[in-house]
Amino acid sequence: MVVRSGNDGIESLKPFFQPRSVAVVGASREETSIGLRLLESLQGSHFAGSIIPVNPHTTEIAGLRTFPSLREIPSQVDLAVIAVPASLVLSIIDDCTAKRVPAAILITAGFAETGGNGIALEEQLREKVRRHGIRLIGPNCFGLMNLDPSVRLNATYTPLLPPAGHVAIASESGGLGLAVVMAAQRLNLGISSFVSVGNHVDVTVNDLLEFWERDPNTDVILLYLETIVDPQRFRRIAERVGKCKPIVVLKAGRTQAGQSAAGSHTAALATNDAAVDALFSQCGVSRATTLEEFLALATGLSNQPRPHGRRVGILTNSGGPGVLCADRCAAEGLSVPELDQQTQAGLASFLPPMAALRNPVDVIGFATEEQHARAVETLLTSDELDVLIIVHVSVRAKDNEPVAAGIMRGIRAARQVGNTKPIYLCWMAEGDLDRKFVVDGEIIPTYRHSEIPAWIISHTVAYDAWQKRPSGRIPAYTDVDLATAKEICAEALADRGLGWLTTEETYALLQAMRLPLAPGGIATSSDDAVRLAHKIGCPVAVKLASHQIVHKTELGGVKLNLFDDQAVRDAFNAIRARLAEAGTFEAMEGVVVQPMLSGGVEVMVGMTRDPLFGPVIAFGLGGIHVEILGDLQFRMTPLTDRDASDMVRAIKGYRLLTGYRGQPAVDLKAIEDVLLRISYLAAAIPEISELDLNPVFALPEGQGCRIVDARIRIQPPCPAV
Amino acid sequence: MVVRSGNDGIESLKPFFQPRSVAVVGASREETSIGLRLLESLQGSHFAGSIIPVNPHTTEIAGLRTFPSLREIPSQVDLAVIAVPASLVLSIIDDCTAKRVPAAILITAGFAETGGNGIALEEQLREKVRRHGIRLIGPNCFGLMNLDPSVRLNATYTPLLPPAGHVAIASESGGLGLAVVMAAQRLNLGISSFVSVGNHVDVTVNDLLEFWERDPNTDVILLYLETIVDPQRFRRIAERVGKCKPIVVLKAGRTQAGQSAAGSHTAALATNDAAVDALFSQCGVSRATTLEEFLALATGLSNQPRPHGRRVGILTNSGGPGVLCADRCAAEGLSVPELDQQTQAGLASFLPPMAALRNPVDVIGFATEEQHARAVETLLTSDELDVLIIVHVSVRAKDNEPVAAGIMRGIRAARQVGNTKPIYLCWMAEGDLDRKFVVDGEIIPTYRHSEIPAWIISHTVAYDAWQKRPSGRIPAYTDVDLATAKEICAEALADRGLGWLTTEETYALLQAMRLPLAPGGIATSSDDAVRLAHKIGCPVAVKLASHQIVHKTELGGVKLNLFDDQAVRDAFNAIRARLAEAGTFEAMEGVVVQPMLSGGVEVMVGMTRDPLFGPVIAFGLGGIHVEILGDLQFRMTPLTDRDASDMVRAIKGYRLLTGYRGQPAVDLKAIEDVLLRISYLAAAIPEISELDLNPVFALPEGQGCRIVDARIRIQPPCPAV
Repeated sequence: MVVRSGNDGIESLKPFFQPRSVAVVGASREETSIGLRLLESLQGSHFAGSIIPVNPHTTEIAGLRTFPSLREIPSQVDLAVIAVPASLVLSIIDDCTAKRVPAAILITAGFAETGGNGIALEEQLREKVRRHGIRLIGPNCFGLMNLDPSVRLNATYTPLLPPAGHVAIASESGGLGLAVVMAAQRLNLGISSFVSVGNHVDVTVNDLLEFWERDPNTDVILLYLETIVDPQRFRRIAERVGKCKPIVVLKAGRTQAGQSAAGSHTAALATNDAAVDALFSQCGVSRATTLEEFLALATGLSNQPRPHGRRVGILTNSGGPGVLCADRCAAEGLSVPELDQQTQAGLASFLPPMAALRNPVDVIGFATEEQHARAVETLLTSDELDVLIIVHVSVRAKDNEPVAAGIMRGIRAARQVGNTKPIYLCWMAEGDLDRKFVVDGEIIPTYRHSEIPAWIISHTVAYDAWQKRPSGRIPAYTDVDLATAKEICAEALADRGLGWLTTEETYALLQAMRLPLAPGGIATSSDDAVRLAHKIGCPVAVKLASHQIVHKTELGGVKLNLFDDQAVRDAFNAIRARLAEAGTFEAMEGVVVQPMLSGGVEVMVGMTRDPLFGPVIAFGLGGIHVEILGDLQFRMTPLTDRDASDMVRAIKGYRLLTGYRGQPAVDLKAIEDVLLRISYLAAAIPEISELDLNPVFALPEGQGCRIVDARIRIQPPCPAV
Repeated sequence: MVVRSGNDGIESLKPFFQPRSVAVVGASREETSIGLRLLESLQGSHFAGSIIPVNPHTTEIAGLRTFPSLREIPSQVDLAVIAVPASLVLSIIDDCTAKRVPAAILITAGFAETGGNGIALEEQLREKVRRHGIRLIGPNCFGLMNLDPSVRLNATYTPLLPPAGHVAIASESGGLGLAVVMAAQRLNLGISSFVSVGNHVDVTVNDLLEFWERDPNTDVILLYLETIVDPQRFRRIAERVGKCKPIVVLKAGRTQAGQSAAGSHTAALATNDAAVDALFSQCGVSRATTLEEFLALATGLSNQPRPHGRRVGILTNSGGPGVLCADRCAAEGLSVPELDQQTQAGLASFLPPMAALRNPVDVIGFATEEQHARAVETLLTSDELDVLIIVHVSVRAKDNEPVAAGIMRGIRAARQVGNTKPIYLCWMAEGDLDRKFVVDGEIIPTYRHSEIPAWIISHTVAYDAWQKRPSGRIPAYTDVDLATAKEICAEALADRGLGWLTTEETYALLQAMRLPLAPGGIATSSDDAVRLAHKIGCPVAVKLASHQIVHKTELGGVKLNLFDDQAVRDAFNAIRARLAEAGTFEAMEGVVVQPMLSGGVEVMVGMTRDPLFGPVIAFGLGGIHVEILGDLQFRMTPLTDRDASDMVRAIKGYRLLTGYRGQPAVDLKAIEDVLLRISYLAAAIPEISELDLNPVFALPEGQGCRIVDARIRIQPPCPAV
């Protein structure tokens, strides 16, 4: 098996993007065949290299000499594009090996996406290409395009070529990718290369990200994903790539229904959407939720510089659309500041008397070319704004020409004095909707709805902030007794097999990890409990200790505010009696006796292992905040200090932690330390499959926090995939 | 002053929509003048009545005889369209009066929207038209269209006519309305009439709703609003109209930035967005948040029947867009059920072998016309589905024709056997995006993004449910002592002027309204407090009573869980000492002594008066739920029993009230009764400007609820506008 990474991996992808010769295996004269369409696409794009059809039944197709098999081609073949029935695919791969073809694109469907035998066939295919070291894109894919003018490779079965530019696209759905590529011309979206990854048996999106990282033609990367292949690797690569090129992902299968559809379509594992959001937020990926947003962000990012701030100027010829634009700016956290008196006076000097000058600036319906030009120039060069949105509604078709000319003149004038402020245009001019705005080679991205640019700007500003801040650090904990923690898990597994640790084991493990347990202890008799209460000092809480019973409160297993011996004794006996009554007496390991804590905020910290994402850490305020309101933040492990800090601040209830109603702010550092230690623990002991610290009492700043209840589940770790 | 309502009002609007003669005042030969454009629009639409230009300086314009003034026209004028400078408008209105012109559209701008003198001029205008009983649309508007083939009136200054149909549109923004009207042709959106209401000095959206309620040409009503004129009247009319015709509103000015823009543009009062949402939910209005949604709902509602349920079938030729569609369905609360074996077998019998059959049904990229037709027919006639979404991505331009033909054949076949299931089409066919689908006169609404139909269906289903359920009832409370409640407010106002009621007054007022106060009472000395504690039984809570101090907890004014006399005494003294220390001793009216309540859920009920909307009732879980998470529901008064029931169930934390973690469900009826009594109180005593019941303890079902703390603010009521 050949394993590649880094430069080797990138080098091995070059034949896909810059082949000198492409063989089409399964080329055909049949009018409706994919083989013929592939040949026509390659010819139609004026591919710079040689095109070699492979077909055992003929000698010439589309004016090209054919060969009966790959093996019989006398010259070197850099790339094989394969469109033969699924049953023949394995033997064609053998031909590739024999002919030393380094790379193949497998268009053929009928693999894992069809279930049953297809799954087995895909496994054989994977094994074969890995063993022979052939790089493979597909199967079940639409092909690949490289628009580099020196290459001009269209190895897909659509004849349409998008304009060449700087946006690279990988898509798990051929159709979705096709829709983007076909829309590119209309949207003035320049493409560097496009890859339909299909069932990604070998080449994955992760490999492509590494390739495009070094590709000088690519500035922006778009991904349509239905699953995340190897999320840990995606995270490492995307974070690194994102530091120089923005990555925009349209991730489908968000919901149950979508996932079921995705399953039938790409045979991909359905992934947990919260984990996906966590992953993207950790590695700076911008997530689009609709195709419209996806395309809008692509055109915005690739054609305009990023704004230096959030102050938006809106120039419109129509009140309503201007208001809708301002609404969305505010909803996206942008500001639409009132212009200062001097700027307003400047605008008033040349705009019609009815114009609104504050921002949005409404030039009204009949403004001239000259008025548009001067207004655009004024707002672009104003120090009060970071970005300009122009919203135009056409009153009469013949007004569009002078307005467009005025806008372009204004932009040119501003650019000529060195202004680089980004501009987005909403061109709501019926009958002239697809007009393109290009000023001295600069494309002005154009949209149909006045709400879209605000969405673009807010995502762009967020990406910019992410890109500028330093990467987080993964702390190494040298104060922990990992050996003891491991031993506890190993012994429990050996003794009882998978399941929850006992309360005693849990406490010992947390102590070994230097996690801040609330004071107190475990008592197995009422006398014990009273002794512990004395040691701690009343009032105390007495709680059922049991690794088998989860909802202790519902079972009457929690007694709070106990002020004297009798109350403690009564509590112990009541809990025991209640369990006996419920017939679960043997589930009682004793009781936990703890002091009553006050003056803090209850939070919860959790860890679970996603089959695909690995350990995921959760944080929330606990109680109904998590269970009813779902106010929970997730992050993939390993957590960096920045991840821990981010997730604490990202919950909706964060204000409760910063000092609410005269309460002191809580010790955020201490909570973050718990999160980081749990992340460390999850990495160090793969036997821990699930963990819940709930509640954790977050105390005022400088006083740390206290874990009041905890549950830890263990099981033999799965072997690495 | 002439006041109209009901049939009179509707009758008075007829000259706008069905005039036999229209005079254009300010008609001109000037190429760029609005007057000339108006004339050309009237002529271009082949208006069935007579067109009379009014201009003192010429005798003929655009082939029509002109008159120097309205007064000199010998024949009857039903409608005057006025486009003269603002300074001349009042005298033209005088001419209308003299000539007995019943209706006028005032295009001219320069009124309240420009501030200063414009406001005064608009006031004079309003006074004049009211006094003379002339109905006026505008000023500062774009005009009116009636597409009725027997009328064909285009009294706007755009020459473009949308197709005639059944959607009526009123817009507060001329530009936004224009954008809709101009897009109608491309969207296959048939319009009945369009009104740009401008500054709505006389005719408002409310009047138009009443007109369209009776208009046989109108089935769906679209409104673009920046303010709500007379929300109480809007509520009454919209609820009534909505029972027979859906109303869709795009309401701008949602946010601060949008409102500032709206203010400069229509001189309208900025309205509170939460109150707007409350109003719309109470009267069944569908709210769109973007222009795209607005238009999508219009084409969906006007061209297809409403679905009978939430089960969506998705037919696609491309996995990715199908997945995105399914995702959005799930997010909108719709189901995409897996088809049963029989249906799948039926599909398999004619679809290509690679097709996905479960739902979404993916016919794959190369399906034929015949395959499309049979798949469409199968899904449309399946009992397992309530609605069909077809998502098509074109692989090659020449494939579109047979696919479109197949889809139409399938629909026709289903319709011919009596099937009436709604169909929405996502036609992502680059180069062929504006293709229209009409099957035997039935328009199949077509969208570009596969997420849009799910949004339409969920709003349509919600409207359908609202329309079918019986209207709510406003309860009349005969058990209350309104006289006492009024007296308390009147005396407090007379004694101290506006401000908060004392604790004693508050309690007495709530008691008079038969609102469920927690037991206990007010004590003015520590001895008093102890006596009360004895009467109630320990443990008790002792809380500062003060109408001046709001945040009692922060001031140490709340002492809980007091078990004996000494603790009660200490609490009283500690509170007094704390106030003395803070220098606010005189703010202490005493203390409230209450039993410690347990076993309930804390909720809050509030009332505030919006200057435009009148009394608004609020409900939430209280504490951080309201203050930090903003989980609050609002409704306009008067509340119906249905409103009260809805708002309790609409908070995010509702599950907490239905029995959470083994707790019993709370007494929802009792909470609803409190809401309804507060609504009744707000209507009965306009002096109450603000009210807070917080917390209210909601006890288990059958045990009612208890108001633990309350604040009531009074002020002399504003005179009715």
